[in-house]
Amino acid sequence: MTHNIAILGASGYTGSDLVRLISTHPDMTIKALSANAKAGQSMSLVFPHLRHLDLPELTKIEDLDLTGVDLVFCALPHKTSQNVISSLPDTIKVIDLSADFRLRDAAAYETWYGNPHTALDLQTTAIYGLTEFYRDQIKNARLVAGTGCNAATGQYALRPLIADKVIDLDDIIIDLKTGVSGAGRSLKQNLLHAELSEGTTAYAVGGTHRHLGEFDQEFSLLAGQEVKVQFTPHLLPMNRGILATVYVKGDASAVYASLSNAYGNEPFVRVLPFGEAPATHHIRGSNFVDLGVVPDRIKGRTIVVAALDNLVKGSSGQALQNANLMLSLDETAGLMQAPLFP
Amino acid sequence: MTHNIAILGASGYTGSDLVRLISTHPDMTIKALSANAKAGQSMSLVFPHLRHLDLPELTKIEDLDLTGVDLVFCALPHKTSQNVISSLPDTIKVIDLSADFRLRDAAAYETWYGNPHTALDLQTTAIYGLTEFYRDQIKNARLVAGTGCNAATGQYALRPLIADKVIDLDDIIIDLKTGVSGAGRSLKQNLLHAELSEGTTAYAVGGTHRHLGEFDQEFSLLAGQEVKVQFTPHLLPMNRGILATVYVKGDASAVYASLSNAYGNEPFVRVLPFGEAPATHHIRGSNFVDLGVVPDRIKGRTIVVAALDNLVKGSSGQALQNANLMLSLDETAGLMQAPLFP
Amino acid sequence: MTHNIAILGASGYTGSDLVRLISTHPDMTIKALSANAKAGQSMSLVFPHLRHLDLPELTKIEDLDLTGVDLVFCALPHKTSQNVISSLPDTIKVIDLSADFRLRDAAAYETWYGNPHTALDLQTTAIYGLTEFYRDQIKNARLVAGTGCNAATGQYALRPLIADKVIDLDDIIIDLKTGVSGAGRSLKQNLLHAELSEGTTAYAVGGTHRHLGEFDQEFSLLAGQEVKVQFTPHLLPMNRGILATVYVKGDASAVYASLSNAYGNEPFVRVLPFGEAPATHHIRGSNFVDLGVVPDRIKGRTIVVAALDNLVKGSSGQALQNANLMLSLDETAGLMQAPLFP
Amino acid sequence: MTHNIAILGASGYTGSDLVRLISTHPDMTIKALSANAKAGQSMSLVFPHLRHLDLPELTKIEDLDLTGVDLVFCALPHKTSQNVISSLPDTIKVIDLSADFRLRDAAAYETWYGNPHTALDLQTTAIYGLTEFYRDQIKNARLVAGTGCNAATGQYALRPLIADKVIDLDDIIIDLKTGVSGAGRSLKQNLLHAELSEGTTAYAVGGTHRHLGEFDQEFSLLAGQEVKVQFTPHLLPMNRGILATVYVKGDASAVYASLSNAYGNEPFVRVLPFGEAPATHHIRGSNFVDLGVVPDRIKGRTIVVAALDNLVKGSSGQALQNANLMLSLDETAGLMQAPLFP
Repeated sequence: MTHNIAILGASGYTGSDLVRLISTHPDMTIKALSANAKAGQSMSLVFPHLRHLDLPELTKIEDLDLTGVDLVFCALPHKTSQNVISSLPDTIKVIDLSADFRLRDAAAYETWYGNPHTALDLQTTAIYGLTEFYRDQIKNARLVAGTGCNAATGQYALRPLIADKVIDLDDIIIDLKTGVSGAGRSLKQNLLHAELSEGTTAYAVGGTHRHLGEFDQEFSLLAGQEVKVQFTPHLLPMNRGILATVYVKGDASAVYASLSNAYGNEPFVRVLPFGEAPATHHIRGSNFVDLGVVPDRIKGRTIVVAALDNLVKGSSGQALQNANLMLSLDETAGLMQAPLFP
Repeated sequence: MTHNIAILGASGYTGSDLVRLISTHPDMTIKALSANAKAGQSMSLVFPHLRHLDLPELTKIEDLDLTGVDLVFCALPHKTSQNVISSLPDTIKVIDLSADFRLRDAAAYETWYGNPHTALDLQTTAIYGLTEFYRDQIKNARLVAGTGCNAATGQYALRPLIADKVIDLDDIIIDLKTGVSGAGRSLKQNLLHAELSEGTTAYAVGGTHRHLGEFDQEFSLLAGQEVKVQFTPHLLPMNRGILATVYVKGDASAVYASLSNAYGNEPFVRVLPFGEAPATHHIRGSNFVDLGVVPDRIKGRTIVVAALDNLVKGSSGQALQNANLMLSLDETAGLMQAPLFP
Repeated sequence: MTHNIAILGASGYTGSDLVRLISTHPDMTIKALSANAKAGQSMSLVFPHLRHLDLPELTKIEDLDLTGVDLVFCALPHKTSQNVISSLPDTIKVIDLSADFRLRDAAAYETWYGNPHTALDLQTTAIYGLTEFYRDQIKNARLVAGTGCNAATGQYALRPLIADKVIDLDDIIIDLKTGVSGAGRSLKQNLLHAELSEGTTAYAVGGTHRHLGEFDQEFSLLAGQEVKVQFTPHLLPMNRGILATVYVKGDASAVYASLSNAYGNEPFVRVLPFGEAPATHHIRGSNFVDLGVVPDRIKGRTIVVAALDNLVKGSSGQALQNANLMLSLDETAGLMQAPLFP
Repeated sequence: MTHNIAILGASGYTGSDLVRLISTHPDMTIKALSANAKAGQSMSLVFPHLRHLDLPELTKIEDLDLTGVDLVFCALPHKTSQNVISSLPDTIKVIDLSADFRLRDAAAYETWYGNPHTALDLQTTAIYGLTEFYRDQIKNARLVAGTGCNAATGQYALRPLIADKVIDLDDIIIDLKTGVSGAGRSLKQNLLHAELSEGTTAYAVGGTHRHLGEFDQEFSLLAGQEVKVQFTPHLLPMNRGILATVYVKGDASAVYASLSNAYGNEPFVRVLPFGEAPATHHIRGSNFVDLGVVPDRIKGRTIVVAALDNLVKGSSGQALQNANLMLSLDETAGLMQAPLFP
């Protein structure tokens, strides 16, 4: 039996990657697509790579027909998202890909995002969507909050280490390298090919990136004490992929054991042999996370490197994996495509 | 019922893309992989993006166990290929991705490839693997010769026009732009990132590229007279994709009608609305060919633009489509993945 | 003695490349820079790569102080350019990098650019800025019109051949590949890294690109009869560089002799050995044009390939070369930097 | 008066970038070029971007005529370099771009490079070529050892901080991102465009990169105690440029004051306004180093970001700057070219 799906905000990259993945999913059918600025256009016009698909026309949100829809993916900007989701019927399951329901604390939300949260009741029911760590709650959730793509990458490297108490909590540095699609399809000068290609830069340096809100929340919760990490993202001349180089103080063998143990049965987490580091080339377009552990020459220090595709495991693939759980489908359905290399 | 598959020469890009595509094929199992220079290694070591798959170890060709194998994909270099295929049991179907069985004329083969053909008997049984035009023969073939990737691109643009006699046969120019993966994984200075990125050049200028052998053969056969085209490939700083800009003398409406008619029911050929030109971005990683027709400002001249992924529709995807036919499977099985964009 | 220079419209790529080149010019000093949208900002803020230079602040055009200025480079959008230049004092020499003074025929201008020309008197005094062909007139000009970057590339390949009558005028095809900086610093979706990198497409297919106005004018003038070429530009994932692959009917030796003869003493035109084709990698950042001639396998047909940097020889470098002439300086001053490779 | 120059090992990227820079140097003439594997070829054949220059033919080292040569740049591989330099006449000044004379301690050299040093006497006379810190000794040196490109980048960020004692010496992390030209023109699979573009990876993780030998030597010497840093390089899909993100414990204002003070009068070091981070786009092709300082949200922690062009300030430009000093020329001669952007 197929499940009917709607995607709100389908004209961005997370929207189009959802369509890409769902197009070969055995048990889902796309019934409705919204995109306010492109309403009335076909998806083929907005994303010509999808031109072979028979898809509903893009509509305004207020014109959406959600009759028979089982689950909605909401790929709208934060702030808009909370308003729209508040107005959806309770009977429809929702996966939000924005930041609106990631932070449990209203003050933290306002600090990082600059606006007060207007759907606090709903917020308390939302489950944080990092599948491997919230699987059981996601299965029963009505509303799941997709994680930040950077936040996901860092957490795959660090959650087991914090939970297993194998690292020093005061000295954690996440130096992260991200491709440009994480910034979306917006028209900004620094995202132009002529400005971005053939070079790199750090941004949001010094602890100002919003995904720190998620790190703070999740790591502190896990540790039972406040944990603050250092986090510096860099923009790289590539379209997809995040590589997080994580510097920790802790024994490399213990770190490796912790990760191996945590992810031994996970279908989408590939822990590399001890001493090897992953590359984003090898996860492109797929739902896999690759993790490597290397001991530093300085005793007691370890480097963990995590790689994932920001649009898939960091966003749309994660969302589909969660949708599978929420609809009692095989968790891996539609997601086993191998990475595209080269 | 699954079909057992072997891939010879699995350590190149066409080999790895076959594995990528077959990994989600519902009716095929990879039973054997050969790669002489990498024998004894795991496929994960040679292609880490495939590390989640449970694959047979790479072996030398002479150590291959083909028991129970229904079909072999042969991704070896030309010349080696004809020797290896000659020694395979008749009962196994074969798809050759090299150039060895593309040219029906032994002299033409020797002219373009520099060595005499040593399996001429076998050659006479080989079917040229451009699926849409040789479908019925491929269904019943034991040996199918995969086409050149550039040759495929040019033919998708031109075959219907020649067959329908809507263009002048004396003035055909194929100006082709290709990504670098078509050159394979070989260590050549001009394929280095530092030499290739951020620039472009023409190569094999003046009619010296080997794929002209295929154009000459196929177009002359279709036209019933000798047809010689001009063909200039260019190497672009991108990994996948071919764009062929084809200049013809003929009425654009007739050209468009010819293409629309030829491909109207084809699952993998997407003819764009009249006047639009395709982009390689929109076929990356997929088995689709996109075709566009635009009239020139000079009356009676038309530009046809064709785009496909050299490793998929130009090679491994084409091979899998043919394998589906040869094994009486659904022609599109394992091939409906949407393009990866961005 | 230094000459005082002003640049109008300094916040675009042609403006910044003028500053780059002039920064090591022995006889020029930048006295004024305008950029309406960025007025009040420093050039360092707008173009951080120039942060070591001591430059005047960006101003609005109406606030420019042109006292003592000998020559103005006008890098404004077309239409704006003609208005601004009309209001400059006669005593200041002007090089316009826009399209406003390239076309001698008012009707042709309106056809290609969509607006009537409002400075027709001035237009009749403008010299077309393709240095090697208008050198003597440029030396004495008050107003020089910089050429289109694509138009320059095609003309370097074709002008001598038309002048020497060694090719058929009815069958000329210019298949051109250009980097993205030619489109300027404007915020357009197709110029985003995520949209442009790793792929290519044709645009303005069928004879709609504005630079055809220049080809029509110049080639017809040279030939003494109407000449219309086919011209298809392609956008490539690279920042700088144009490669024009030009298909002509004519004897390759005669073509080569014509080009060798025309450019034998030119400091910036490098004619390659017969049979070799140039690459844009080898002219990047420099004022050189590279030209190659290759005979086709079809008798009587020849391929000419031209490569130049659209921002230098195609625009700002050309402008500086012309400025040197207009100011009676050494024509090569400030322009002999070798290309940047890799 | 011009100085005569020879370049040994001119067929690599550091060799060609020396030629590029020297080609517009007012006081240097290239008299001899060696490249054993390319002996007998012209430089134009090996590096077509330099085809406008009138250069001596490439020779074998043993066939070099060094008559009248004042200074030799030696761009040979390490180990070869020490042998060749040992045999050069004392009267010729030498700048070695290899690793052979960077490390003062013979045991350290053998540890990092795997072979015993065979020119220890010569080694004791070599001056470490980080211009801003060894300027006076370089002026009087006969042999200067060019630094590692990564080692230079890290030292620009850290030397003043260690000298001024404003950071904790036990907790220094250099997370470095480098373009591919640092790996030279060698044919390695991971340097192919198809393998490298569109992704990133860490390499030499855990403290195994050879440039750590330089960090250990220089930082320990400066501090008067053993200093060991963590250093993880990453390979990025770009040709030129290094960005080092350096994590230190120390007050950001003190860090900024230290850097500002150290580099206030340096012609090639551009310290950005407090709180800003540099980009490699803005130093490409030039001899500039850009430095930024940003305080972390965690009190007492600071991020320093350094950017330079590995082939220029990290290698050939540094060498030329040192050559200017050794020949009593203006230190900036031939080096003031602005960065190439975009």
